[in-house]
Formats: sequence, structure tokens, C-alpha cells
Amino acid sequence: MFTLDARLDADTLAVIELPLSAVRLMRDANYAWLVLVPRRANAVELVDLGDDDQLALTREIAAASRALRACVPCDKLNVAALGNVVPQLHVHVIARRHSDPAWPRPVWGAVPAVPYPAGGAEALIARISAAL
Amino acid sequence: MFTLDARLDADTLAVIELPLSAVRLMRDANYAWLVLVPRRANAVELVDLGDDDQLALTREIAAASRALRACVPCDKLNVAALGNVVPQLHVHVIARRHSDPAWPRPVWGAVPAVPYPAGGAEALIARISAAL
Repeated sequence: MFTLDARLDADTLAVIELPLSAVRLMRDANYAWLVLVPRRANAVELVDLGDDDQLALTREIAAASRALRACVPCDKLNVAALGNVVPQLHVHVIARRHSDPAWPRPVWGAVPAVPYPAGGAEALIARISAAL
Repeated sequence: MFTLDARLDADTLAVIELPLSAVRLMRDANYAWLVLVPRRANAVELVDLGDDDQLALTREIAAASRALRACVPCDKLNVAALGNVVPQLHVHVIARRHSDPAWPRPVWGAVPAVPYPAGGAEALIARISAAL
């Protein structure tokens, strides 16, 4: 039985359910930052997914990447499965800008999260969801 | 014509050539840290690879992950395509330890690289190469 990790749930908002992954938006207006969470109980590492799930996740990462590029300004994509703090398997797909507050460093721990303005996250979610 | 980026070349040692990617070992004894570089000229983003290449890269990331787990102690794998500093498409596959100097932070920029002792990198390359 898959259950979204409590910290991922608290840090993100639901965008859309893809065939394998729950797509979530990080509550941080510094970056357009998606998190893909494969709905597989106890999955921790990419390599622990079955072959079909690995391929499905590859396609969903590509779809999320294209959706971000279609919806927001994007100078570089960052794609990462780290999981050092939250072990539940999740993949970050982040649209980076040369002007974002962490550039060119990785985003994790770089600067404090900034809340979206009222309605801002919902508007972005609607656009990304339509693009997906 | 694919040419390995000069900075990637300087920062890493050759491990093995897989069908799509050059596998390299980062010159940093803090972590067992592989870098996979798809031999595709001008590739920058994962999503810019063709579908077949994306699937091949997924398989090679899985193979590199398994090889690391077979060859070195590993509490967590970190897999990431960032490219904010070196745009040539490359994927980090890193065996993390709870005892490594950056844990649980990401490795990039966390602590200065530590050179391998004489013969240390070559011995690790031989083991990883055999596992691949």
C-alpha cells in the first residue's frame, strides 16, 4: 500500500497523477520545482524499481521536463533522485534560471523557501497540469 | 562529433565505455562517485536525448548503481543530472555513506575533494569496471 511520505506531503502541493507517479509542486516560489513520487510502496532507489517502472519513470521525468519548459522560463533543468533526508523514492525536476537565488549551486539547502503569493501556486499547477 | 568536456575530463578518470555513455570516476576519495556521459554531441538535457537513448541511459544508470552497491559500502544512492556549471549532459551516480563528510547534504560544493591514495582510484576502477 503506497502512502505519500508525510514530509513530502507537507512540503508540496498535488499537481496531477501520472500512470506511475504522483506529481507534486514544491511550496517554494524561488523555483518552479516538481517532485515525482512513484506510487510504489517501500521504493527507495531508482534501481529498485522494476524495469517497466524504470522506463515509465523515465518517460514521466521527460514529460515533467517538457511541461516545465512550456510553462515557465527555464535556463537549465535539474533532475535528481537524492533521498538522503526523505528515503521514499522521489525525483526532483526543477526549472533553474540564471537569475534564481541559488544559481549555479544546487537548490537543496541553498536559500530558505519563499511562499507563493495567494493563488500563485494554484495558477502554476493549473498550467503544468494542462501541459502534462 | 562527441568530445568529453575539458572540465569533466580533468575532474574524472576513465572507468569503462558503455554502449551510450562514458563512465568516469570523480577524483574525490570522499565518495565512490561515478559520472555517466552520453556520447552525444551537444546534448545538454536528459529530455533532449532521443527516446532510445533515454532508455539506454536509464539502463546504464541502473547498471552503474548496481556496480557501486556491489563494490563499495553504500547507504544511499544519489543520482542527478544538474549541469549548472558544466552544460555537457552528464549524470552523477554516487554511493553515499551516513559517515561521509557531506551526509545528509548533497555532495556538490559540500567539502573539498580529497585525492585518492596512490593506486586507490585504479583499484576501484578495476572493481567497478569488472562489475559493469
